[in-house]
Amino acid sequence: MSQPADGARRDRRESVLRAAVELGRRAGLGSVEAGQVALQAGVSKALVYYYFPTHRDLQAAVVRCSADELLATIRGAVVLPAGDDPGGQLTRGLDAAISFIEEQPEAFAALSRSAGFHPKLFEVFEDTRNAIADLLAEGIGLTEVTPGQRIALRAWIALAEEAVLHWVLADRPVPRADLVAFCQGIALEMLASPLARGATASRRTP
Amino acid sequence: MSQPADGARRDRRESVLRAAVELGRRAGLGSVEAGQVALQAGVSKALVYYYFPTHRDLQAAVVRCSADELLATIRGAVVLPAGDDPGGQLTRGLDAAISFIEEQPEAFAALSRSAGFHPKLFEVFEDTRNAIADLLAEGIGLTEVTPGQRIALRAWIALAEEAVLHWVLADRPVPRADLVAFCQGIALEMLASPLARGATASRRTP
Repeated sequence: MSQPADGARRDRRESVLRAAVELGRRAGLGSVEAGQVALQAGVSKALVYYYFPTHRDLQAAVVRCSADELLATIRGAVVLPAGDDPGGQLTRGLDAAISFIEEQPEAFAALSRSAGFHPKLFEVFEDTRNAIADLLAEGIGLTEVTPGQRIALRAWIALAEEAVLHWVLADRPVPRADLVAFCQGIALEMLASPLARGATASRRTP
Repeated sequence: MSQPADGARRDRRESVLRAAVELGRRAGLGSVEAGQVALQAGVSKALVYYYFPTHRDLQAAVVRCSADELLATIRGAVVLPAGDDPGGQLTRGLDAAISFIEEQPEAFAALSRSAGFHPKLFEVFEDTRNAIADLLAEGIGLTEVTPGQRIALRAWIALAEEAVLHWVLADRPVPRADLVAFCQGIALEMLASPLARGATASRRTP
């Protein structure tokens, strides 16, 4: 029996993963398991197991996939051709992140609030949030990040995520501009705090 | 066969729940299942199932138990005899919450980051965070909470939780006072934002 070519194998893995992501969006991460994914993808359960040997591998791949999408969205908005206005980077990154969450609020809520359930999932979230903190640091012109600044950046990400989620899930009770202004105002306050100004500098996560 | 008295039944349920909470603290919420809990409590698996028919019932009870403890801690610090300084309520509530998290950072992280995994768990978290938002509103003297203020309060809770967790897990790289000042400064900024000042008033959650 001939082996499928590398490209075909990648495509099949990709279509199984896509089905799993779709299922996670619709029914929550807890529902992502081989049988349901096989049904959704129209393949055998054995094929799902071939690419994702355990339940956790499957769920971690789903979370990684959504996290990568969010990161690419923010990076696309924040990283700009040289000469562009750096002050606007925070606004653009924020705007891109809000749009991303607006498109799939339930899925985002379910995914972002499930991370602690298992170390494999948690690792993906930690990586993602640290990467967002680095993008943010870059966006506001920090070349080095102190431990205090890292705490402040991570705390701000949690605030912005929660604010946007609640705004969307409560049917946008205030104008979008107020939400953006809120997150931006807190970001400025955060950087001026003793927490962000004190302590010794450390490199950004590599 | 005689039924155990109500008191004895409550005690047995309580000791099973205590064992489950202890297990969750040590090994994460994902590890809380009947077999392990029975072992930890020194009772039969059947008895665990008698009190908590499903896996999710057990996990939800564990989360509810920790959440109630946190709420009681904050309430004890915030709700004061009449005539006391209301301005200090936020500081005291914050201080109590930080101490609570300091005592069990891994457990708190694991629990607070697992909520979205299942609707039953998520409900407990939503209830708890809304109750904390109400306590906060009370602490800063709001009798009614607008939708914008609720978003701001919930966002602030997420910020404070993340800041405290990162501070503890990073071995307290800055003085505790800087952390408290950071959370307090953001709380004041938050209340002054257009998000918190605009929109129409609604009652606090009943």
